[in-house]
Amino acid sequence: MVELSQCKSRRVLLKFLALCFLVCLVNVQVAKAKIRKHKWEVKYEYKSHDCYQKLAMTVNGKTPGPTILAQQGDTIIVKVKNSLLLENTAIHWHGIPQIGTPWFDGIAGVTQCPILPGDTFTYRFVVNRPGTYLYHAHYGMQRESGLYGSIHVSVPDGISEPFAYDYDRSIILNDWYHKSTYEQATGLSSIPFQWVGEPQSLLIQGRGKFDCSSMDAGVCNASNQKCSPFVMTVVPGKTYRLRISSMTALSALSFQIESHKMTIVEADGHYVEPFVVQNLFIYSGETYSVLVKADQDPSRNYWAVSSVVSRLPNTTSALAIFNYNSIHPEKKPPTTPHNGPQWNDVALRLAQSHAIKARHGYIYQPPKTSDRVMVLLNTQNTIDNYLHWSVNNVSYNLPRTPYLIALKENLSHTFHQSSPPDKYDIANYDIYAVRNNTNATSSDSIYRLEYNSIVDVILQNANTMNPNNSETHPWHLHGHDFWVLGYGIGKFDMNNDPKKYNLVNPIMKNTVPLHPYGWTALRFKADNPGVWAFHCHIESHFYMGMGVVFEEGIDKVGKLPSSIMGCGETKATYSP
Amino acid sequence: MVELSQCKSRRVLLKFLALCFLVCLVNVQVAKAKIRKHKWEVKYEYKSHDCYQKLAMTVNGKTPGPTILAQQGDTIIVKVKNSLLLENTAIHWHGIPQIGTPWFDGIAGVTQCPILPGDTFTYRFVVNRPGTYLYHAHYGMQRESGLYGSIHVSVPDGISEPFAYDYDRSIILNDWYHKSTYEQATGLSSIPFQWVGEPQSLLIQGRGKFDCSSMDAGVCNASNQKCSPFVMTVVPGKTYRLRISSMTALSALSFQIESHKMTIVEADGHYVEPFVVQNLFIYSGETYSVLVKADQDPSRNYWAVSSVVSRLPNTTSALAIFNYNSIHPEKKPPTTPHNGPQWNDVALRLAQSHAIKARHGYIYQPPKTSDRVMVLLNTQNTIDNYLHWSVNNVSYNLPRTPYLIALKENLSHTFHQSSPPDKYDIANYDIYAVRNNTNATSSDSIYRLEYNSIVDVILQNANTMNPNNSETHPWHLHGHDFWVLGYGIGKFDMNNDPKKYNLVNPIMKNTVPLHPYGWTALRFKADNPGVWAFHCHIESHFYMGMGVVFEEGIDKVGKLPSSIMGCGETKATYSP
Repeated sequence: MVELSQCKSRRVLLKFLALCFLVCLVNVQVAKAKIRKHKWEVKYEYKSHDCYQKLAMTVNGKTPGPTILAQQGDTIIVKVKNSLLLENTAIHWHGIPQIGTPWFDGIAGVTQCPILPGDTFTYRFVVNRPGTYLYHAHYGMQRESGLYGSIHVSVPDGISEPFAYDYDRSIILNDWYHKSTYEQATGLSSIPFQWVGEPQSLLIQGRGKFDCSSMDAGVCNASNQKCSPFVMTVVPGKTYRLRISSMTALSALSFQIESHKMTIVEADGHYVEPFVVQNLFIYSGETYSVLVKADQDPSRNYWAVSSVVSRLPNTTSALAIFNYNSIHPEKKPPTTPHNGPQWNDVALRLAQSHAIKARHGYIYQPPKTSDRVMVLLNTQNTIDNYLHWSVNNVSYNLPRTPYLIALKENLSHTFHQSSPPDKYDIANYDIYAVRNNTNATSSDSIYRLEYNSIVDVILQNANTMNPNNSETHPWHLHGHDFWVLGYGIGKFDMNNDPKKYNLVNPIMKNTVPLHPYGWTALRFKADNPGVWAFHCHIESHFYMGMGVVFEEGIDKVGKLPSSIMGCGETKATYSP
Repeated sequence: MVELSQCKSRRVLLKFLALCFLVCLVNVQVAKAKIRKHKWEVKYEYKSHDCYQKLAMTVNGKTPGPTILAQQGDTIIVKVKNSLLLENTAIHWHGIPQIGTPWFDGIAGVTQCPILPGDTFTYRFVVNRPGTYLYHAHYGMQRESGLYGSIHVSVPDGISEPFAYDYDRSIILNDWYHKSTYEQATGLSSIPFQWVGEPQSLLIQGRGKFDCSSMDAGVCNASNQKCSPFVMTVVPGKTYRLRISSMTALSALSFQIESHKMTIVEADGHYVEPFVVQNLFIYSGETYSVLVKADQDPSRNYWAVSSVVSRLPNTTSALAIFNYNSIHPEKKPPTTPHNGPQWNDVALRLAQSHAIKARHGYIYQPPKTSDRVMVLLNTQNTIDNYLHWSVNNVSYNLPRTPYLIALKENLSHTFHQSSPPDKYDIANYDIYAVRNNTNATSSDSIYRLEYNSIVDVILQNANTMNPNNSETHPWHLHGHDFWVLGYGIGKFDMNNDPKKYNLVNPIMKNTVPLHPYGWTALRFKADNPGVWAFHCHIESHFYMGMGVVFEEGIDKVGKLPSSIMGCGETKATYSP
C-alpha cells in the first residue's frame, strides 16, 4: 500500500510537471504566434497562361494566387470575397489539419456550405507545423479553373531546420485545359461519355506554351510576355531550397533541372532522409522541398522541365529557365530540353516512393498495430450507363447538407446512414481483368471511425475498363498526416505484405500515389475530431466518385460557426 | 336629406350587388381553375443549336424548355431542381404579374435568393390573364445560356377570343453566342472593355446555322440534324395563330414569312386592333400573336426569316421552313430568302410601334392623369474606367439581400436608402452629343412608389459614347402591364408631348422598345404590392446597370415564404 501511494504521488508530480511544461509551451507559443490577415477577392479574369486566352479563376487578380507566408503556430485569417458572377466557391487549405477548426477545412458539402456570389467568408486556422502546403478551390472541379496557391510555414524563431540553404524559392506545377470546368464536367456526366482528353499545356508557376501557330493572335499569341517561361535566377555557388508542388488536374509529372542534382529534404511538411535525384516525380496534391546548388557553368542558362509521366504524353513538356544571374534571364539555354524518364517506367516511380523515408531525428514512430483495416479497391464502373470511379464498388457523391453540420446537429436523414464496405471481394477479384463492375452503386455514406483508433488503409489499384490499363491515383487525406507503410505491385497479400511494412522510419504525408496495378498501405490515428474527405486528387476522378469520407470524434467538435451553414437542411428560415 | 338617404341606400345596394357578382366570379374561377404541376431539372448539356457544339442550360434536356400550357386562372406549380454543378439560378415568369405572390417573380436579388446547386425550389403562381408569356433565367446573364421557354394561357371555357384560327403554333426567336456567359460577363467587367460583339447566329425555335466550313466537324458539323431548320407544317387554306416571342440577348429582329402576310392580334397578352404587316419587328422580351393564312401556292415551301435590325448586322439571318403539308418538310424553297427591311430604317420600326393599339372592345382605359412623372435618361458611362449603362447617371447594381425580404423585414442597411433621381438635367443635356457622363455613380437604391398611385415613366434615349450612335433598348417591367402612351424621336418635350398621348386606346404591354434618339412614354398603376424591376431586356445592358427597381405597397405583402431566403442578411444561423 505504501508503494502504491508513493507511486500515485509520483504520478501526480509527473502530471503536474507535464502540465507546467504544457503551460510554458503554450505561453511561448502565444507570445510568439502571429495573426496573419489576408483579404482575398476571387473572380474570373482573362489570362493567357500558355499564350491561349481563356478565363481563369483568380485570387486578387493572380493565378497561382498569393503565397501565404507564416511561422509555425501562427493564426491565418483569410477573408474571401466571392466575386464570381453566378458561381459559389469554397477554399481548402491542403495539408493543414485544422485541429480544433474542422469547419474551416473548406470542402463544400463536407465541412461547409459554399460561399455565394457577393458573400465574404472568413477562414481562421492555425498552421501547426512548418513545411510546404497548398490551398485551392474545393467545389466541384473548380480547382482546375486556376484557384490555387502555396502556403509556406517556417520553423519558430530559435529552431533550425536540419538542412542549410541560402535562398528559399517555390514553384507550383500544373496542367492546363482550354475547356472550362463546366464543359469538362458536362462531358463526364454525359452519355456517351465525353472525356476532355490530355491537357493542352503544362505550367510551371503559371506559365506554359501552347502551339498558337494555327490560331488567331487575338486568341493565342505566342509572343505574349505573360506566357514567356518562368525564370528562376540563381547566384553561382549558392544553395536553393526549392519548394515544388503539384496542382495538376490529371497529370503525374517528372520535374528536373538540367545538369543540376536535387536533394529531396521535405515531403508534405515532413523532413525526408535526404537523397539525391536527377528528376523528381510528383503527383497532384504533393509538395516537396529539394536543395539545388547552383554549381554548374555560370556562363549559360539551363532548362527546368516538367513532363507528363504515367500516361502516354500528348502534352508538350513545360520549360522554365534556371538562370545564372550574370546571364540575361531570357537567354535560351544552348541545349535541347530533356524530357526525363520514360512515361511508362513504373519501376522508377515506385523506387522514388520507396526511397522517401522520415529523416533521422525527425521520425514519428507509428503505432505497431492498427484497430481497423480497410482495403479500398479503386475501379472504374458504369452506373445507369454513366461512367464512374468507385471504391469497393461504391461511387461517392456529396450530399447537399455538409456532413459536419449534419452529424453535429443530428440531421441523420441528410445522408445515407449505413457504412460503405471496409473490404472488396479480395479472394475472387482479378485486378488485372477488365471488369464493368455493373453492381456498383452511388452513395453519400461515410466511414465512422472510433475516436483515437488506429486505422490502416490499403489502397488497391486495378485494371480500368480498358484492356491493359491501370492509372496512377494520388490519394489525399484531409485533417491528417498518415504514415506510409509500404507500396507494392499486384494484389495486396493480407497475410504477408503487412509483415514488410516499414514501421521504423516511414514518412508521414497527406498525399500519396497509388501506382498502376499496385497497392499503397497507410496508417493514421483518428484523433482529429471532425469529418474528413479522403480522395483521389485527380479533379475528374473525385468528381466521378473516387473518394470516401471519415468521421471521428464528432461529439468532441466544438460549437460550429454559423458562417458555414445556409445550404441543404441548414438553410434556415430567417426570423427577424 | 331624403334624396341623400335614398342615394345612400342605392349605393349600398349597388355595392351589395357588386359583391355578389364578385363572389360568383370567384366561385366560378375556383370551380374551373386547375393546378398544373411541372417538375424541372436545370442543367448544362452540350447542344448544337447552330451546328456549333457548346454548353447550353437546359430544362429537362431541352432549350427552349418545355412550353407551359394553362388556362386563365390556373395555378402553375414548377418544382425547379438546380443540377448545375457550381452555379445558382432563379427563374422569372415574364409577363405574369404575380399578384399576391411577389416572392415568386424569380429575379435573384430582388424577390428571392438564388437556388443553390442540388436544391429544389418551388414556384407557385396564378396566370391571371390569357395570352403569350415567357420564362427565363434571371440571374446575372444566365438567360443567354439557353434557359428560356414559353407560357401559353388560354381563355376560360365558354369565353371566345376576338379572332378565329384553326391552329395554334409558337416559335421563340433568339440570338446565340459561342462564348459562355462567364466569358462575356468577364469581358464586360474588364479594363479594357471586351465586348463579345454581334451574335454568332440567330435561332428560330432553337435552330440556326453557323458557317462551320473552317471548323473541325467534332466542334461544328453543318450536317447535324439538330441544326436543320425549324419546320412549321401547314394545311392549305387554314389559318394559324402564330405566337412569336423574342428572347434575344442583344438583337432587335425583323421576322417574316415569304409571300404570307401576318395580322398582328396580340401583344404581351393584350389584344391588338388587328393590322397587317409583311414583317414583324420584335424586341427582346416581347411576345406577339399573328394570324397567318396558308393561302399561297401549296406546291412549294416558303422561307421564314429572322434578321437583325437596329444594329449593323454581322449575323446571318436565321431561316425556318414554312412547309405546305404535301411537300417534303426539308425541301428548300425555290427562292432566295429575303432579309427584310433595312437594318437602320428607324421610321419603319417606329411606325409599327405607333400602329399597335388596344383592340376595340378590349380597351383598358388609362387614368387621365398621373401622380408622379419620371424621366429616365439612358446613357453609357464610365465609372472608374469601367464601362456602364446608366439611368439618370446612376448605374444600377443588385444587392446581396433581396429587396423584397429587406423591405418586409426592415433590413434597411442592406441597400442604399436614398432615392435615385426622378429626372435628369433635361434643359441642358444634349441627347445627340457624345458624353462620358463621368459623374455617374453605381447604386442599389430604388424608387419607392405610393401604393395605388399612377406613375408616368418617360424613357429618354441618347447618344452612346460612340459618335452618331444610339441603340434600341427594350424595357421590361416586372409585376405590371403599362399603358404605352406614346413614342417620339428627339428629346421629350415636357410641355407639349404629353398632350399627344394616346389616352383613347393605348395598348398595354410589359416590354416596349425605346428607339434610337427617341422617347417612349408609359403609365402604370402602382397597385401590385411588391418589389419590381424595370430594366433593359438586353442581357448585357442590365448587367452593366441599365435598370431601376420600384417598390409599392410593401406593407400589404403577405408573409414571405422561407424558401426565398438564405442569402445576404437572410442567411440565418441554423438552430436545431
